[in-house]
Amino acid sequence: MISDKKFLTKKSEDLSKWYNEIIEKAGLVDQSPVKGCMVIMPYGYAIWESIQRTLDEWFKADGVQNAYFPLFIPYSLLQKEKKHVEGFSPELALVTIGGGETLHEPLVVRPTSETIMYQSFAKWISSYKDLPLKINQWCNVVRWEKRTYPFLRTTEFLWQEGHTVHANEKETMEMVMRAINWYKDIFEKKMGISVYVGEKSESEKFAGAKRTFSVELVIPNGKALQGATSHNLGQNFAKSLDIHFLDNENKQILPFQTSWGLSTRAIGGLILSHGDDNGLVVAPNIAPIQVVIIGIVSKNEADMKDVTIHIKRVEEILKKSNIRYSIDKHLDKSIGYRLSETEIKGIPLRIEIGPAEVDKNAVIISRRDTFKKEAVSLNKLSTFIEESLDSMQKILLRQSKEQKEDLTINVNTFQEFEGVMKNRRSFIRAYWCESATCESKIKELTKATTRVCELEEMDKNDNGFCIYCKNKARRKWLFAQAY
Amino acid sequence: MISDKKFLTKKSEDLSKWYNEIIEKAGLVDQSPVKGCMVIMPYGYAIWESIQRTLDEWFKADGVQNAYFPLFIPYSLLQKEKKHVEGFSPELALVTIGGGETLHEPLVVRPTSETIMYQSFAKWISSYKDLPLKINQWCNVVRWEKRTYPFLRTTEFLWQEGHTVHANEKETMEMVMRAINWYKDIFEKKMGISVYVGEKSESEKFAGAKRTFSVELVIPNGKALQGATSHNLGQNFAKSLDIHFLDNENKQILPFQTSWGLSTRAIGGLILSHGDDNGLVVAPNIAPIQVVIIGIVSKNEADMKDVTIHIKRVEEILKKSNIRYSIDKHLDKSIGYRLSETEIKGIPLRIEIGPAEVDKNAVIISRRDTFKKEAVSLNKLSTFIEESLDSMQKILLRQSKEQKEDLTINVNTFQEFEGVMKNRRSFIRAYWCESATCESKIKELTKATTRVCELEEMDKNDNGFCIYCKNKARRKWLFAQAY
Repeated sequence: MISDKKFLTKKSEDLSKWYNEIIEKAGLVDQSPVKGCMVIMPYGYAIWESIQRTLDEWFKADGVQNAYFPLFIPYSLLQKEKKHVEGFSPELALVTIGGGETLHEPLVVRPTSETIMYQSFAKWISSYKDLPLKINQWCNVVRWEKRTYPFLRTTEFLWQEGHTVHANEKETMEMVMRAINWYKDIFEKKMGISVYVGEKSESEKFAGAKRTFSVELVIPNGKALQGATSHNLGQNFAKSLDIHFLDNENKQILPFQTSWGLSTRAIGGLILSHGDDNGLVVAPNIAPIQVVIIGIVSKNEADMKDVTIHIKRVEEILKKSNIRYSIDKHLDKSIGYRLSETEIKGIPLRIEIGPAEVDKNAVIISRRDTFKKEAVSLNKLSTFIEESLDSMQKILLRQSKEQKEDLTINVNTFQEFEGVMKNRRSFIRAYWCESATCESKIKELTKATTRVCELEEMDKNDNGFCIYCKNKARRKWLFAQAY
Repeated sequence: MISDKKFLTKKSEDLSKWYNEIIEKAGLVDQSPVKGCMVIMPYGYAIWESIQRTLDEWFKADGVQNAYFPLFIPYSLLQKEKKHVEGFSPELALVTIGGGETLHEPLVVRPTSETIMYQSFAKWISSYKDLPLKINQWCNVVRWEKRTYPFLRTTEFLWQEGHTVHANEKETMEMVMRAINWYKDIFEKKMGISVYVGEKSESEKFAGAKRTFSVELVIPNGKALQGATSHNLGQNFAKSLDIHFLDNENKQILPFQTSWGLSTRAIGGLILSHGDDNGLVVAPNIAPIQVVIIGIVSKNEADMKDVTIHIKRVEEILKKSNIRYSIDKHLDKSIGYRLSETEIKGIPLRIEIGPAEVDKNAVIISRRDTFKKEAVSLNKLSTFIEESLDSMQKILLRQSKEQKEDLTINVNTFQEFEGVMKNRRSFIRAYWCESATCESKIKELTKATTRVCELEEMDKNDNGFCIYCKNKARRKWLFAQAY
């Protein structure tokens, strides 16, 4: 499936060309005949499964239950929340014909499931004893996009959407923050990507939400990638979709709601963050394959048999230590091709086994991040691998944090702001008065949009001055050009 | 979420009314505002997850890789296989508007993914070294149905679809049979449902397939439910979608293909097969919750505390034995309500713990299938539970097998055939000449369609006579009225 051509493009030279090459060469994505829709190939999908497994476990431990709601939403139902339908209207795919007949009312292919879920929630909830209700769904959604990039912005994508209902505001905000922290953790602890966490501005928040929080990735080209979002929906949807509960004094109350989602876009973030000129680098904690074993082919039959037996021994050790491994089967291909394949796919550790290793009861291990090669005897293998994976995970996160900080510039004048966006392009931290006028002016002049007000800044009340209008500003915001 | 009203309908009296009541009362399904689409509620979805986990593990152990292909298929691509598009045309949902604009070509919401997958396969396969290719996808599909029933026949449903490509016919048939045996196993070994396995007739096979195999469930009302199918696609799709490979002599060859699928319909089969007048009965091997713990509420605070501590002890034992359990939290509800809830949901074992059980360092366990209640001391708990689950699993399968055989009648004359279908309604085993004319005549007169030619019958060459036209017939077939 994979071409053995060398990379043509260096990551540092042309990130977007490198990206398009690597997603194909690493076997992550195939083009589809449907504009803006992608085929997620087995290796790409295995990364998604790894993300799914992790999040699903965290959700369930918190009492979130999975369920499944229809793909189609009647147009009239979507309209029930005014701002929600306004926000999504330009991106809708509509089914107008079913079973050969024109439908009386078009069906929207879900762009998100608030309305269809909440009309069920309204039936499920009657008393405070039914709360909190915590539901999650793993599914596909469709948003008609004009410009698309694999993983980063696609017409159809896969995601999870969590939706909860609470009796009071305090619990609601706790849920919003718990969700955004799960997302911070999956990026930082699992994918090794350091992120910014904060609140979105009025104009950037989710259509229909009261407040939106997001995690923002700093891409090596200085652009921002919104990694995942968590919304405090307040009572907006409860009002429009008629969700009520009786409190312990038998009074009818409007509940409070949250929704939060992470999509296959996260895989795009993973690719852009860690890859290098040799291909992808997948952080060990999320890698579907942590170790690949390459048996060196020999023409001597006895040698070949020994190598095969030695591989079996190594397998046993990996199995016992619960290490996710695979054995390279491309015995017909050149060793150069086989080695470069494992590099392109970004597998953290590579074990090579030839007759020499059999003799020494050892293996050769090389690390994807440092390319350091070492001979390790079998009795030390398990510890060595665990330590290497652990070390690589830590180094990736540290590098990512350094890069993030390196690509974030504090500026005090708009001239500086414009200079940064024109020359180096990066994240900018600056005071902003929080008026929509300044926000849109800044975007118009520099392409930079507000990303978030970082959590640490949120409660501040500084005596700052807006980077654009110079009026009073109490908090600093992060700005960047968005993907 | 669940009503505490008693069941109104007995399973033996009105199966379809009982079914509609139980799917609601057990919290499996909620109605949706979209005709023919269902909301799969958390308990229903947990059963699906249990089926998924099992199959996914079997598939992966066989080297099948998961991937994801677009939801939308251009209409022209679907048309590439003539019989395929003919078969699916009447059931298509079409997206004609995207992002506010009318599309040049309507997009079909996938009813199945052969065409969209195989146009990728054509790119992925070039040499015999790329074969076999084994891909599976977990997704939603849409077929516009006129009459729908939750789980059994819905416009949108969830399923897995496996698609493989092979270099020769032998390997292809082996794959077809391996898949159909996975389905037999998930029904028999996991869900405790005895099934018939065999080949479909020409008229009943999948649109575009060369041969179709299926597992057929015998529902207590004598109707047939097709549980899952496995298709030998021959070279039909390879021809229409231009898949070729070079063999080891560098000759260009058309490969052979299979596809196979199991859907959320299986949950409908589970409900219909095992339930009773008190609710659902879920076989232990597939049950998302195998044991539910009910703490008896006491007004005495010290007693209540003891019960809580005792529950923790029991939990520890269940955790260690890897038993899937949950603790009933409806402490505010009457004990009658709480017990009947666990029965409606069909949880295999129920543990009750009150002050008396604390004193005896024991628990009360009752079985969902036999309603037998027993006191079991904590030191024997783990063994007792494992044996009970095992015994219940075996009994359910045995009962299912007995029922299946009881509801299968061998007939020798068409008069008998008509009598059975008119009076008792059941599966019928009879000789058939395998002509489409007789098949459609039989359906017209009795509503019975050919279900399968059982595997054991397939190679026979008897001197039988067709039940309808009395011409020569070499094999017996199973007939029944289908769901």
